[in-house]
Amino acid sequence: MRVYADNAATTYMTKSVMDAFVDALQNFNGNPNSLHTDGQVTQEKLDECRARVAKAINAQYPDEIIFTSGGSEADNQALLSAARGLKKKGKKHLISLNIEHHAILHTLKKLEKEGFEVTLLAPEANGIVSVDKVRDAMRDDTALVSIMFANNEMGAIQPIPEIGALCRERGILFHTDAVQAVAHVPIDVQAMKIDMLSSSAHKFHGPKGVGFLYARRGIRLVNVIEGGAQEKGKRAGTVNVPGIVGMTVALEEGVANLDENMKKTIALRDRLIAGLSDIPHAKLNGDPIKRLPGNVNYSFEGVEGESLLLKLDLNGICCSSGSACTSESLDPSHVLMGMGVPVEAAHGSLRFSLNEENTEEQVDYIIEKVHEIVNYYRSISPFWEELEKGEREHVI
Amino acid sequence: MRVYADNAATTYMTKSVMDAFVDALQNFNGNPNSLHTDGQVTQEKLDECRARVAKAINAQYPDEIIFTSGGSEADNQALLSAARGLKKKGKKHLISLNIEHHAILHTLKKLEKEGFEVTLLAPEANGIVSVDKVRDAMRDDTALVSIMFANNEMGAIQPIPEIGALCRERGILFHTDAVQAVAHVPIDVQAMKIDMLSSSAHKFHGPKGVGFLYARRGIRLVNVIEGGAQEKGKRAGTVNVPGIVGMTVALEEGVANLDENMKKTIALRDRLIAGLSDIPHAKLNGDPIKRLPGNVNYSFEGVEGESLLLKLDLNGICCSSGSACTSESLDPSHVLMGMGVPVEAAHGSLRFSLNEENTEEQVDYIIEKVHEIVNYYRSISPFWEELEKGEREHVI
Repeated sequence: MRVYADNAATTYMTKSVMDAFVDALQNFNGNPNSLHTDGQVTQEKLDECRARVAKAINAQYPDEIIFTSGGSEADNQALLSAARGLKKKGKKHLISLNIEHHAILHTLKKLEKEGFEVTLLAPEANGIVSVDKVRDAMRDDTALVSIMFANNEMGAIQPIPEIGALCRERGILFHTDAVQAVAHVPIDVQAMKIDMLSSSAHKFHGPKGVGFLYARRGIRLVNVIEGGAQEKGKRAGTVNVPGIVGMTVALEEGVANLDENMKKTIALRDRLIAGLSDIPHAKLNGDPIKRLPGNVNYSFEGVEGESLLLKLDLNGICCSSGSACTSESLDPSHVLMGMGVPVEAAHGSLRFSLNEENTEEQVDYIIEKVHEIVNYYRSISPFWEELEKGEREHVI
Repeated sequence: MRVYADNAATTYMTKSVMDAFVDALQNFNGNPNSLHTDGQVTQEKLDECRARVAKAINAQYPDEIIFTSGGSEADNQALLSAARGLKKKGKKHLISLNIEHHAILHTLKKLEKEGFEVTLLAPEANGIVSVDKVRDAMRDDTALVSIMFANNEMGAIQPIPEIGALCRERGILFHTDAVQAVAHVPIDVQAMKIDMLSSSAHKFHGPKGVGFLYARRGIRLVNVIEGGAQEKGKRAGTVNVPGIVGMTVALEEGVANLDENMKKTIALRDRLIAGLSDIPHAKLNGDPIKRLPGNVNYSFEGVEGESLLLKLDLNGICCSSGSACTSESLDPSHVLMGMGVPVEAAHGSLRFSLNEENTEEQVDYIIEKVHEIVNYYRSISPFWEELEKGEREHVI
């Protein structure tokens, strides 16, 4: 059996997204900045997509959407814009989480070198930050709070509406990296008082190389990529309209089917969690309820996540031992470490990210194989032997 | 008749590129950073493409190719890397041309604000910079020379091998924005002593949203987009492998057919130039010989380029009055002004960018329509009447 359970790393395009993308490659492949008909037809399609994307997240105006090459670029642009814009007003403090994606953490490091002060909050043991902690960290010179909508590794969903309300009340800009959340959970930027939001198409069945940044009107963006006057001068480079068409269709599809997909995916997720729960010395990472519909992140003591992953792969199951973006690193997950998971447990973690296309049979197959492989590795592990003999203490 | 003669703004994918792209969207759409089979198959394809792209421009090593979201991003990364890297060695002077693309000019402005000194050289009247001028501008603290391979508006090809040799001799880094040149004219980064080169797929029948930066081994790149460890930590964001596959096929196709395409396109170009040459008070901009195979940039006194363009569009001919990237601006072209074209002539300029898919019949149709429309606008122009009466002086 083949099971793709790594949708947090990337998704595959649905037939309707693929059809729309290929159609756009043929019919809306002009340069929208060209004044002739070919260009103008493409420009109209671009305007239409901008309005549709805005509507899908309930942005007030289409021009609040800037198309980018993906989520990382959008994250970079959001943080640099907020920080540099507010520095002039004497605001030099930034608040974020220690479990954010590196597109956020590395950009914050860059801003620290420019003289900004960064407070990185740690979430509670369930992976969710306390709103009180965010409130307590706020200062008069706080320029921005950037808190991810949902974590890419262990799926915890942050209290976004509460943090949004708090920031709005205190006059502090609020950005959320919603790369894992858009089209997977309900998002309403107005109701949730989100000032900026980053998104990436390939995380919701759209094409790669395209994403968007939502920035509320009045927020002045700085350019990450300098050059031509595309995207009102805020993002240079010929606009990838076919990619944007593919993303728009994928986003609308995700939003239209959100309730149904969530229901189906949550049932699969909870079936998988239940099926793994009888493995001794193993533990679900992240909040069991307030988590992404498809995310199951489990730590198995005494085994290496990477070994599990490779063996599962040999059995046709695609999953991950952390985020794909950091897969070349041997360090334990900064996310799990950041929420207080012991290093031994962090090393033995696996992430399954399901979606509505997975089936109960696939989930049962994963459960069967994980049991088998965890048992196998434990049976040959001297480390596990020491644990069993009581020469080492269990951390889970 | 429908004639697409705006290939410098963007090209359409050939059938083979489209087929390769669609195939990759289906078969190499994994996340190459995932450790499972889906990811690793994609990673292998990515490695293969990197080697093929390197070979196509005769780079010595595949790892000298960094994939980006396009030419503008590559330009930004090249300039920022060279400048910031060499600043530490006390080098703070940059040399470029006043007719470069805005991805270069705006990045240079950004660097000026960081304390760099920029010398912008003007080309000669034919649009080509003199190598002596470049030599004379060099200083002991010159970090970088960035000179475009070929101009996007008037097609002049710069003396790249000579400038490359000069820079290598003086120990100065040499970058070329080759967005208009790659797969259109022969390029050999080793023979031409190019240290860094920027390219964009959609300018040579590849997909939009993807490009590459060549950077010779040993050049330390800085990140334009911070985040994950993709592209050896030099370009964050999930790698767009399907787009890269499409680009690779397009590049190889362009290089394999280069001689034939050049011969065919030059013949069409020269036929168009000859056919327009009997229009009075009109002039070819840029060198007649050392120019891109498909580029025809003509100024017609007494008429607006934009009016010509729109009327040609009504007749089925797609061309431009400047670069698409600046089409929203009413200013005359900085390229034509930068090479000394009088403002009246710059306002009346048209760019046709042909390629091997155009035909003699199409060229003859363009010639016929341009004559007709130039005559028409001149016949209703009070400005032209003044010129004809001798109340104004002709600039062409």
